[in-house]
Amino acid sequence: MGLIVQKFGGTSVGSAEKIQNAANRAIAEKKQGHQVVVVVSAMGKSTDSLVSLAKQITAQPSKREMDMLLATGEQVTISLLSMALQEQGYDAVSYTGWQAGIRTEHVHGNARITDINTSAVEDQLSEGKIVVVAGFQGMTEEGQITTLGRGGSDTTAVALAAALKADKCDIYTDVPGVFTTDPRYVKSARKLSGISYDEMLELANLGAGVLHPRAVEFAKNYLVPLEVRSSTETEAGTLIEEEPSMEQNLIVRGIAFEDQITRVTVSGLANGLTTLSTIFTALAKRNINVDIIIQTAAGDNKTGISFSVKSEDTDNTVAVLDEYKDALKFDQIETESKLAKVSIVGSGMVSNPGVAAEMFAVLAKKNIQVKMVSTSEIKVSTVISENDMVKAVEALHDAFELSKQASVV
Amino acid sequence: MGLIVQKFGGTSVGSAEKIQNAANRAIAEKKQGHQVVVVVSAMGKSTDSLVSLAKQITAQPSKREMDMLLATGEQVTISLLSMALQEQGYDAVSYTGWQAGIRTEHVHGNARITDINTSAVEDQLSEGKIVVVAGFQGMTEEGQITTLGRGGSDTTAVALAAALKADKCDIYTDVPGVFTTDPRYVKSARKLSGISYDEMLELANLGAGVLHPRAVEFAKNYLVPLEVRSSTETEAGTLIEEEPSMEQNLIVRGIAFEDQITRVTVSGLANGLTTLSTIFTALAKRNINVDIIIQTAAGDNKTGISFSVKSEDTDNTVAVLDEYKDALKFDQIETESKLAKVSIVGSGMVSNPGVAAEMFAVLAKKNIQVKMVSTSEIKVSTVISENDMVKAVEALHDAFELSKQASVV
Repeated sequence: MGLIVQKFGGTSVGSAEKIQNAANRAIAEKKQGHQVVVVVSAMGKSTDSLVSLAKQITAQPSKREMDMLLATGEQVTISLLSMALQEQGYDAVSYTGWQAGIRTEHVHGNARITDINTSAVEDQLSEGKIVVVAGFQGMTEEGQITTLGRGGSDTTAVALAAALKADKCDIYTDVPGVFTTDPRYVKSARKLSGISYDEMLELANLGAGVLHPRAVEFAKNYLVPLEVRSSTETEAGTLIEEEPSMEQNLIVRGIAFEDQITRVTVSGLANGLTTLSTIFTALAKRNINVDIIIQTAAGDNKTGISFSVKSEDTDNTVAVLDEYKDALKFDQIETESKLAKVSIVGSGMVSNPGVAAEMFAVLAKKNIQVKMVSTSEIKVSTVISENDMVKAVEALHDAFELSKQASVV
Repeated sequence: MGLIVQKFGGTSVGSAEKIQNAANRAIAEKKQGHQVVVVVSAMGKSTDSLVSLAKQITAQPSKREMDMLLATGEQVTISLLSMALQEQGYDAVSYTGWQAGIRTEHVHGNARITDINTSAVEDQLSEGKIVVVAGFQGMTEEGQITTLGRGGSDTTAVALAAALKADKCDIYTDVPGVFTTDPRYVKSARKLSGISYDEMLELANLGAGVLHPRAVEFAKNYLVPLEVRSSTETEAGTLIEEEPSMEQNLIVRGIAFEDQITRVTVSGLANGLTTLSTIFTALAKRNINVDIIIQTAAGDNKTGISFSVKSEDTDNTVAVLDEYKDALKFDQIETESKLAKVSIVGSGMVSNPGVAAEMFAVLAKKNIQVKMVSTSEIKVSTVISENDMVKAVEALHDAFELSKQASVV
């Protein structure tokens, strides 16, 4: 007998029928003799409805009150899922974040979990109940309701699994697992049976969108075995663990990509000690996420810098730089939009120095110009034209043979 | 400077615009220098939507999970109202029932408040904030979310006012106050400027519908001055207090009435000691509310009984009696539906023994047959044909001169 934490996202509990389906998943594990904790998000588009209610009242809702408002979304789901379980004759009990002992720091809208007091949940489990917990929310020491920000329900599930020392945490979603690349773009994309935490972290950060990076990081730190799987199909999903037991020989595990990237180039910058920190502190303060950063050498007292941002942030970025024109003394700002980032990820790269070179060769062969490059131990990212994105991903997927099932060592 | 508790019901917070309006009411008191606590219900029909979601899952939702579900309704309103107050530059903070220290007994769906720990609310008030509290809900000692049942938000407001020793509790609603009778039926109905707790209690129990009897009882026990007033108009409403300072000379303060009453007559009952308790215990167990009860004498060992129920309960009532036929040994059950109850209420009756006789005379003059009578110190109720209801109310309203403003003593 084990303890299993299941997590169902908004689309997997978006209707009464889907809630019944989630209940069936929980019951299936219960019937196997496991203890079951289910973590759920708000139903489908209900968060959007709540946000639009708030917008009717004010353009700038306070974060505390937004947390109060949004936390009702998961509370609705937990009660309905518990009813569905009870309707089928299973003992179930719903817990809000605070009832489940999920303690967070005192930050609204994006709080981090600081501690989980699992005693209430454990008591209910030991009585044989299926415990249904509201994801995405917690409570501060002072009794304030907080929410965990994007990917919050994933984080709740993994954190609860870690605190309860669960044997497994299953993330049910609307895709059947983690793919070598996005199957909506590349037909030969293949579902991976296993992937390491680090690889998943790179893919998650690179916008693969299946699982939130915070949750993966949490799972990595506490070694919680995760499985991403379909909420509608019964086949196995993708297992995320320290070292994937299968497919160890793959150098490249997957290819992530995203479009709507803009490159910002600032030239003729004063080459002072504080230049970089001035620029990126100012951008961070305005919540502009800078991704790849490249410094370009120039004359004696001058330097240049290129960095990539989301295209939607382009205007804000330029405005912030203009504000600091006096301090930075730059000559000009150039922006190039309609770019895309394509990245190959795989822990096998660490011991294979030629992988980046191979990637550039594949792109060159397809006449694709690389505009920016960034590397880590287990990934190589390139920025190219948006028009070349799918072509590049397909060529790389072929070249690194990702559509082939790897041999088991 | 005083402390004022305001309560807005579902229709008074049913849209963003109405929430803005409620905010303006709170701000008006704040500007007068008062401390302000606002208690709100769920928005308009949102409770109905939640109930219908539950019905899609199960026909018999558990009461604990229904409380979990329904409690989200007020939580949405408190956050939105706080945002509306903040939007206008006022410091406001929302509290759920449990955050506001509202402790209840461990009963789901219809819990009674056992205690209120006001320290959190008082701290916020002393910081100059407007405190917005979710009505209708509380928490048990074990941390379970409970709801207070019908009229729950009225009860929350009055209980909070009592616990905070508020100077006043204003109940904002969609009518401008308490009327001598229902103005939808009787054109000459007049808004009362004052009424006593006991009179209001009789009117509330008799279905006047403005204020829940539980809340009135609470207000009476703790001597909380209540005012029922319009959420859309600025005129004064009706003040409910121990002895109304105005209109003391009125013998009859108001006329309440309700239709869809059924009279059930059981004849030839065994005249045993336990007959009455058997019947009414059995009906109570099935949640059938019996109103007027009349025992009719008959032969030596036999007795008869007549009582009134809501017409919707008629079939259930007969079914319950049939179940106990062996114990009760009655001859037959007769039911008469399409009846109405018309009651005159006024604390002046205590010292005016002729009031009931006057009532009967008025009805007789209009050829209205009285089928049942019930009296208390401050009311006389009659059951008559549904078709005669409005005619009776109009005649009584005229006869007792309720449309005239009383002289101030």
